[in-house]
Amino acid sequence: MNIRVTLTEKSRAQELNMQNIPFGKHFSDHMLIAIYENGQWGTPEIKPFQPLSLSPANAAIHYGQSIFEGIKAYRHADGSSHIFRPYDNYRRFNASAARLQMPAVPEDIFIEGMRRLIDLDRNWIPGFADHSLYVRPFMFAMDDTIGVKPSESYAFMIILSPTGPYYAAPMKIYVEEYFVRAVPGGIGFAKAAGNYAAAMHATAEAKKKGYDQVLWMDAIEHKYVQECGTMNVFFIFEGEAVTPDLKEGTILAGVTRDSVIEVLQDMGLKVSERPISIDEIISSYQSGKLKEVFGTGTAATISLIRELGYKDIKMDFDIKQWEIAPRVKQLLSDIREGKAADTKKWLFKV
Amino acid sequence: MNIRVTLTEKSRAQELNMQNIPFGKHFSDHMLIAIYENGQWGTPEIKPFQPLSLSPANAAIHYGQSIFEGIKAYRHADGSSHIFRPYDNYRRFNASAARLQMPAVPEDIFIEGMRRLIDLDRNWIPGFADHSLYVRPFMFAMDDTIGVKPSESYAFMIILSPTGPYYAAPMKIYVEEYFVRAVPGGIGFAKAAGNYAAAMHATAEAKKKGYDQVLWMDAIEHKYVQECGTMNVFFIFEGEAVTPDLKEGTILAGVTRDSVIEVLQDMGLKVSERPISIDEIISSYQSGKLKEVFGTGTAATISLIRELGYKDIKMDFDIKQWEIAPRVKQLLSDIREGKAADTKKWLFKV
Repeated sequence: MNIRVTLTEKSRAQELNMQNIPFGKHFSDHMLIAIYENGQWGTPEIKPFQPLSLSPANAAIHYGQSIFEGIKAYRHADGSSHIFRPYDNYRRFNASAARLQMPAVPEDIFIEGMRRLIDLDRNWIPGFADHSLYVRPFMFAMDDTIGVKPSESYAFMIILSPTGPYYAAPMKIYVEEYFVRAVPGGIGFAKAAGNYAAAMHATAEAKKKGYDQVLWMDAIEHKYVQECGTMNVFFIFEGEAVTPDLKEGTILAGVTRDSVIEVLQDMGLKVSERPISIDEIISSYQSGKLKEVFGTGTAATISLIRELGYKDIKMDFDIKQWEIAPRVKQLLSDIREGKAADTKKWLFKV
Repeated sequence: MNIRVTLTEKSRAQELNMQNIPFGKHFSDHMLIAIYENGQWGTPEIKPFQPLSLSPANAAIHYGQSIFEGIKAYRHADGSSHIFRPYDNYRRFNASAARLQMPAVPEDIFIEGMRRLIDLDRNWIPGFADHSLYVRPFMFAMDDTIGVKPSESYAFMIILSPTGPYYAAPMKIYVEEYFVRAVPGGIGFAKAAGNYAAAMHATAEAKKKGYDQVLWMDAIEHKYVQECGTMNVFFIFEGEAVTPDLKEGTILAGVTRDSVIEVLQDMGLKVSERPISIDEIISSYQSGKLKEVFGTGTAATISLIRELGYKDIKMDFDIKQWEIAPRVKQLLSDIREGKAADTKKWLFKV
């Protein structure tokens, strides 16, 4: 694939201490950009990371046609670089695009563009345990008129950000009984910008109560748990691991979620994708059958949930007793960081 | 209020034929911008309309914290300029801001900033009937980090666009049975960017079937009609005008909607804000009790709906027979354009 490359005059990689670097604050030397107009994609360009010049009438700012993905790349001990399951994110990206009435991005621009960009900025992949290079592909509307209609032009971009552990501490999660993230027939399954803005108020309210994030419930009955907005959620019962199913289109089909399902099955657990109600969670907690709760996501990887709150009910967990979540986390980390065999072909070599 | 003003070197107003000018394509000489950071609003600036420089990690593009308003300004025969109900839009703007976890914009920046900007660019208000200056206040996140959280910095802006009639032709509307715009506990009442992107796919599907827009139904029962996405909707029955009520928070509280309710009441009609089901619409159509259907909105003003489609049912209307909608349209236009007395104090003199 043809990519126009303009190199930075001086790399900034050496100026940065990448150990325990905060998520999403620092960006690598280069970025990729491809423009869609007149019904086709132009030649992608890799150039120094720099501001964009956008019209005040930019259609993404006014009408929210904007989607993204989150992917991680890892450095192995032998110095090689690897991207975790980029094809899965590629497919999800174009599913989001279709739902938001945006054009599909060709595979070579997404995958080969990402590979070339990461290869060029490989010094930005931190080599420490639990560290990685966060890869952010995104696409947004570029029309500069303010009639409400799908844009005719788009920018597809990839930017790279070195990152340490996302949520270092085990989390306190509030099960949200009033506000709603997604509904059947809506855009909950899409990684659309608007879904995240819509979630911020409930999260802020939960923070006032001392929680880190909310766990959403379904929009119709306010009964079945869904996801945490930046994480899918897993419940470990005696003899069964449960995560909400994707049938209604209200939950993001997480790539880490899918990986965790496979790893749990490999560990011999029965994994069920099925509706799970807050009532079942509470009664299982009270009877002692609910053993572990954790979130999964590209940014978060595996996040232990040490407390679940719902109305006046608090469910505390002694995470020091947990066996499953820490083992899944370690197994996934080992595959990603090249310390265990990649038998599932999840790694894509840069 | 202190506003820094930088004038354009040469006005572009004379280069443009403003008769029947398309909606949202052309912008006036100047724009207003105010920046929120470190917990406070800075001094607003009026300067030549120009591109924005935004980080590729801009939080509005990635997470959709972006809201807007639509307002119109009119030129009267005596040469004076008037804004239609800007305080109502101001209140709604800050209601949207609160729901999206964004800071409130102070009244003087919004109202006095708008007045000063329009006064400066008053040559951009077209003087033709059904023409106006469309005023677009908007606010979006300005942080340049990609962690999911409310931005700490924002830009509030106003841009101006001269406009002719928005939907010249009477419309064909499809009543959407699967896709959903808003749900109780969601952000349907907010004028948030993400609501519009989420609506585009269903609208595109309706266009394939020969319709202009969709009429949304409620998310829970798919039974009660809501709004058209850029318009509220009114049904004129024998002796009663009905528009869906706002109680569930799923419908935008349109300023034109509110104005039309008042005008209909002044005309002696009983106006009901209440749930209205697709079944009631169909049976009233079949019995001949449903006389007129129209949409209301700032961009659209009053748009006659000449056909409603729902699944295999088509409801055609002979709009030449209509009395109410054309009269409301005329009365509203006359007030806006200064041809009738502004007894309700809806006009704000520039």
